[in-house]
Amino acid sequence: MEIPVRFGNDGYTVTVERGALRRVGTLCRLDRKVLIVTDDGVPARYAEAVFAACREPYLAVVPQGEGSKSFAVLERLLTDMLERGFSRKDCVVSVGGGVVSDLAGFAAATYMRGIDFYAVPTTVLSEVDASVGGKTAINLGGVKNIVGAFYRPKAVVIDPETLATLPPRQIASGLGEAVKMAVTFDAAFFTEFENGDPLSKIDAIIARAVTLKRDVVERDEKEQDLRRVLNFGHTIGHGIESAAGGALHHGECVAIGMLPMCSDKVRARLLPVLKRLGLPTAADLDPEAVYAAMLHDKKSTENGVAAVFSDEIGSYRIETVRPEALRARIETVIRRNPA
Amino acid sequence: MEIPVRFGNDGYTVTVERGALRRVGTLCRLDRKVLIVTDDGVPARYAEAVFAACREPYLAVVPQGEGSKSFAVLERLLTDMLERGFSRKDCVVSVGGGVVSDLAGFAAATYMRGIDFYAVPTTVLSEVDASVGGKTAINLGGVKNIVGAFYRPKAVVIDPETLATLPPRQIASGLGEAVKMAVTFDAAFFTEFENGDPLSKIDAIIARAVTLKRDVVERDEKEQDLRRVLNFGHTIGHGIESAAGGALHHGECVAIGMLPMCSDKVRARLLPVLKRLGLPTAADLDPEAVYAAMLHDKKSTENGVAAVFSDEIGSYRIETVRPEALRARIETVIRRNPA
Repeated sequence: MEIPVRFGNDGYTVTVERGALRRVGTLCRLDRKVLIVTDDGVPARYAEAVFAACREPYLAVVPQGEGSKSFAVLERLLTDMLERGFSRKDCVVSVGGGVVSDLAGFAAATYMRGIDFYAVPTTVLSEVDASVGGKTAINLGGVKNIVGAFYRPKAVVIDPETLATLPPRQIASGLGEAVKMAVTFDAAFFTEFENGDPLSKIDAIIARAVTLKRDVVERDEKEQDLRRVLNFGHTIGHGIESAAGGALHHGECVAIGMLPMCSDKVRARLLPVLKRLGLPTAADLDPEAVYAAMLHDKKSTENGVAAVFSDEIGSYRIETVRPEALRARIETVIRRNPA
Repeated sequence: MEIPVRFGNDGYTVTVERGALRRVGTLCRLDRKVLIVTDDGVPARYAEAVFAACREPYLAVVPQGEGSKSFAVLERLLTDMLERGFSRKDCVVSVGGGVVSDLAGFAAATYMRGIDFYAVPTTVLSEVDASVGGKTAINLGGVKNIVGAFYRPKAVVIDPETLATLPPRQIASGLGEAVKMAVTFDAAFFTEFENGDPLSKIDAIIARAVTLKRDVVERDEKEQDLRRVLNFGHTIGHGIESAAGGALHHGECVAIGMLPMCSDKVRARLLPVLKRLGLPTAADLDPEAVYAAMLHDKKSTENGVAAVFSDEIGSYRIETVRPEALRARIETVIRRNPA
């Protein structure tokens, strides 16, 4: 399936198709110098498949995890390109999850003020979430994605066959973001999670989630307004993610973070969907730590937090609230262990 | 004088006006957190004038010179903003020359994927050249401007009164870039340099050069094609600048670098103009070193160098040539000292 993403006269195509990786050379222009950026947690054969399709490939393998979204690693990638004599006509390809595409995309966005970038996401989370929208970034001072650029890829290649090597917990985490899209935008899509086995129709779920995100990003590329709806579950979710210190995956935190923002009616339908996917619905954390981490997050400003709520499945409401207003909501998803 | 720069529905205004700095608060939205970036070579009173117009100003003074266009200094500015709690709604103002606007503009372009940026250039060079066009960058591995972004300022404020504190040599260097615009685009403008004293009409010269550059940038913001003409004098000029190791100013190198790219007819008129401005017309350098530095420059690719020539005053011709073809031309502007 080919999903076009359009911005005026510009745009790119997201291909979602089993076996797409085998024809990456026809989906991306690789007859030039190519820096392939992957991490040491991604099965090497995916980057090798891209490597084999390039005229002049160079491979950069960064350590797995958020720690690679740093100035030090960015500078290393840019220096690699400089030393290899990369020109404006050469390109960067990311192969892996969101860490790698955020980092490699930012390197492509800034090398010579921007060279071509292709993303080959290999996790459900990055396929559903990071692959569309052109957000690239690194972290600084413990704050995620605080330095970056909006930068469009030239193409995105999603091959669901790569999910065969993905641990079930990571698949579930990625589906958490797809559920988020369904709750806020698409009631019919939500029923897909309620009926039948989501894993048996994961290709269609990815394509649908990408299409929904595309519809948002086309209307608000730079997150001025509408795009904020994509933060549903993320305000408290980011607080949980920071406070958990790596013990919980991103999509798991979004799953938990959605629940306090739902009406009772929405929550009653969302809870069984999350449980069925094996996603957590509460966290064993100190609510004060979650609240403090949420306040530290870049989206909270002096004037309040743009919080996203869902009162009905398939709809959302954005409201600027004082951060304290979210304090009590955090409590509702904290699991108290007996002392 | 107000010079509008338009890109579709977006754009900004360049104000060229004596006393503009005194009303910077009406030309820029400063009722928020503002990071003012200047360098220790710029008279402090210019940054202080901006400071006084802000609701919540923070001042960052970087060391004068290209050395500040580094990852280390960029990271420090971004960390400053993060620690001060800058949000997407806050902004950055540069006060000084091209080094400061390139650096501060790139910090603004990348903080939270882009916050508002204003430029207050205080040198002729940055007023004529760096203030329009949205090129921001830092250096890496000894290569200038290799990492950066195209990022539009929200407004540019040029107050020619600030030139009163500028050394004559720097004024002449900046005028070298204005002469470049005249040679390639505007024969009538060129006669302004031939007749009368350019220094007595410097406000008008700056405004005319900005307008000419605006016309180019509006048609080719991302340097796909036409904008390359602005590199007239820069291909060999950059080689001279690197080889001179700081002994020559940028506009001086452009002045020298234009000469080998001119027809005899153009050169015959250009030479006296440059001499009158006190600009050099040859360099005491090893031509091999100039050639090697030119090859290292980012604009030379495997396929050749997009070289800009002028056969008639007020016109240009872009031609892709093998770098070796420029080797002999370099010789023509090398001054051989008797051994």
